[in-house]
Amino acid sequence: MSKQKPSIPKGTRDFGPEEVSKRNYIINIIKSVYELYGYQPLETPVMENLTTLMGKYGEEGDKLLFKILNSGDYLKDVDADIIQDKNANKLLSQISEKGLRYDLTVPFARYVVMNQNELSFPFKRYQIQPVWRADKPQKGRYREFYQCDADVIGSNSILLDAELVMMIADVFGKLNLSVTIRLNNRKILDGLNEYIGETEKNAALITAIDKLDKIGIDSVAAELIERGFNTSQIDKIKSILNFNGDIESKINFLESIFTGEKGEKGILEIKSLFEKIAGIGNNSIKINFDLTLARGLSYYTGTIYEVISNDVKIGSILGGGRYDDLTGIFGLPNMSGVGISFGLDRIYDVISELNRFPDSALSNSQVLFIPMDDDAEKFAVESARLLRDENIRCEVYPDLNAKSGKKFKYADDKKIPYCAVIGSNEMAEQKVMLKTMSSGVQRLVNLPELIAELNGDESFGFLDVSE
Amino acid sequence: MSKQKPSIPKGTRDFGPEEVSKRNYIINIIKSVYELYGYQPLETPVMENLTTLMGKYGEEGDKLLFKILNSGDYLKDVDADIIQDKNANKLLSQISEKGLRYDLTVPFARYVVMNQNELSFPFKRYQIQPVWRADKPQKGRYREFYQCDADVIGSNSILLDAELVMMIADVFGKLNLSVTIRLNNRKILDGLNEYIGETEKNAALITAIDKLDKIGIDSVAAELIERGFNTSQIDKIKSILNFNGDIESKINFLESIFTGEKGEKGILEIKSLFEKIAGIGNNSIKINFDLTLARGLSYYTGTIYEVISNDVKIGSILGGGRYDDLTGIFGLPNMSGVGISFGLDRIYDVISELNRFPDSALSNSQVLFIPMDDDAEKFAVESARLLRDENIRCEVYPDLNAKSGKKFKYADDKKIPYCAVIGSNEMAEQKVMLKTMSSGVQRLVNLPELIAELNGDESFGFLDVSE
Repeated sequence: MSKQKPSIPKGTRDFGPEEVSKRNYIINIIKSVYELYGYQPLETPVMENLTTLMGKYGEEGDKLLFKILNSGDYLKDVDADIIQDKNANKLLSQISEKGLRYDLTVPFARYVVMNQNELSFPFKRYQIQPVWRADKPQKGRYREFYQCDADVIGSNSILLDAELVMMIADVFGKLNLSVTIRLNNRKILDGLNEYIGETEKNAALITAIDKLDKIGIDSVAAELIERGFNTSQIDKIKSILNFNGDIESKINFLESIFTGEKGEKGILEIKSLFEKIAGIGNNSIKINFDLTLARGLSYYTGTIYEVISNDVKIGSILGGGRYDDLTGIFGLPNMSGVGISFGLDRIYDVISELNRFPDSALSNSQVLFIPMDDDAEKFAVESARLLRDENIRCEVYPDLNAKSGKKFKYADDKKIPYCAVIGSNEMAEQKVMLKTMSSGVQRLVNLPELIAELNGDESFGFLDVSE
Repeated sequence: MSKQKPSIPKGTRDFGPEEVSKRNYIINIIKSVYELYGYQPLETPVMENLTTLMGKYGEEGDKLLFKILNSGDYLKDVDADIIQDKNANKLLSQISEKGLRYDLTVPFARYVVMNQNELSFPFKRYQIQPVWRADKPQKGRYREFYQCDADVIGSNSILLDAELVMMIADVFGKLNLSVTIRLNNRKILDGLNEYIGETEKNAALITAIDKLDKIGIDSVAAELIERGFNTSQIDKIKSILNFNGDIESKINFLESIFTGEKGEKGILEIKSLFEKIAGIGNNSIKINFDLTLARGLSYYTGTIYEVISNDVKIGSILGGGRYDDLTGIFGLPNMSGVGISFGLDRIYDVISELNRFPDSALSNSQVLFIPMDDDAEKFAVESARLLRDENIRCEVYPDLNAKSGKKFKYADDKKIPYCAVIGSNEMAEQKVMLKTMSSGVQRLVNLPELIAELNGDESFGFLDVSE
């Protein structure tokens, strides 16, 4: 075996200690809010059968699935002519029957159908796991990335839609981020179609509106004309997309113009939603009824959600919506559900850019014991055990013979805020020389004083040099 | 698309809410102990390049790797004759360049080498992630399973070996499990070879001793004869494997018979280890110097670790050891390291069998609000928000029109211990009718009383019916 320069597959990432800790800071806040609302964790296998995955994400999605080669002699039973033809697609079905999951929604639907007799509905689950897509990697787009989903299935109660708004507000509040929660309802977009007297081009309209943020109203209008909408229709569409006003006036406006069944149902649903979330939101968590919000994915049928940062331009950091029939494809029809998904990578980038990760997000040690001889090492080990009983993260530098500079550099590199040096003088007094790494200040302290300092106990008055 | 009966790949598992919560209970204890000792988290991609994985786990291991098909037209550039030959092995190298990780040790070594200039050594990392092996699935053996590793690399200090013993003791203490920590040193096994005058058959001896637990001393002796050891050698081996006594007498015994360089080094190391862990261990966490412990994996060169449950026969629930050269294969030689790996699935089974999962391991809601009308729902939602501010997990039943029995069954199914019913009478008093699901007892309480009850506040005296 020759030595090799190691690398990782393109589009994947290693997460070192600081990144994992910061990512977990975000994940733990999301998890805790999910659980406070009765959502419970689900974990599904990384590998799913290709029969479960194929055909669920469109033709393009099928291509982006990572497929796993069958184990053993995968060519043994393959038809000779398929091999001869070099037909990659036909061969695929004979040499691969598993793939990496592409999202968390299809595995969730698969799980619900497989366990429908054991589950109690409405079934609230959250799932925070990685997914894989063989997309061309580029800045901010990875082949392996986490999704942080919460979905509830088996009820069409708008209360559940409303609770998701509360959960979104709670998460971003706890993350100390200012965001705008954009809300709309797919039935209102259906109503827009009814209003302009168009029932066939629903998908075309949604696709065009979906681009509004990126290309502006004029380009959307141009695209609609290309797709066969007439100018009178486009004027009506514009009157809605351009409508300004608060939530109430938007609802009043729609009520005054919508007469179709779907549109009226949409208005009822959005009214009910805003009634139930009255009082949610504040100066930093803004909530909008956004008539221009469409969300591309085709299976949404009710409330749709999107969140953007008010401070950093980075696109949506959460998406979601209600769908009438998620499990039908697996044989369990008419199960309405609603769900959201936090965009972990982008939220991470927003917090990084705003420098809002708290120090407590880091998992580094709070103190490094530096013993000078064998006896001091023993004292250090015993002291460290006492500190750990108090839940204080600490370590003992393991090499007595290393140079002093190397030891302090180790603390600096690992961002350990204190070093506790123990030589024979300190041993004699059963104390440690505590050095604050940021200031260089040193002071002789006993163990209770050390514990108080590391616990941030102000009464200890470590910095009071007058005493 | 036709409807399909969904399934998951054999050897993989879904983990539902209760299982995830219980698994996280174990994982969180392991994580917290790792962090208390200065170990920090690392996460590596699920996919690694096959050049990183192949050849690291022996020929058998190469076969057990799950390989990922290249994306796009994976047959495009394949040599025609390789296809004609139906040569699965040769074709593999042209259609697959990535695989699922087989363990966490090789990705760790790869990470250390790739980031050697940014890391400060000794580098302490822990990693808790799933791994994949295309083994034949059977009871207790899965194709996807978690490993919970901690390793420190870049120092040969025995203090680090000793701290791992403390960490093991801390974890099993916090898990409330009685275990035996078996310790030995590979250099003592080398010394055994020196003692019997045999230097060529080191691996054969270790492989045989490794089977001692399963097949007994006589079968081990028979196997050794088969492998060319003579009876005088086997008597010497037996004298050591059968030696009974406490740690000190074992060390004295070895000192009296070992004269070779490796054996003496092994004795020094194990003496130093036991000095540093003096006082660790108690009636439920036993620590043994076990001369029969070998640990099969070939790269260990120093201390070796194994843990077994004292209450449940299930094999080892932790393994580990020191290795002199883990990163050499990736171009960074002479990095000594030591590490351990907790067996999550088996620990889960032990705790289940002993019924030792605490109630607090579950993430289920603590109370279900059941409002009877729209006003009550509003009151329920507001109350729920106040409870969540107090970190109490709760939900509001979302469907006003569902039958009462269905609502209580939902609470029962989800193991929610309390229901808070709100009808017009309760609304009038701004109270809830709190039902304890286990006893069926109901009582009218206001919100502060509800919060006190759910926080387990004894002074509230909920069960004191005399008042």
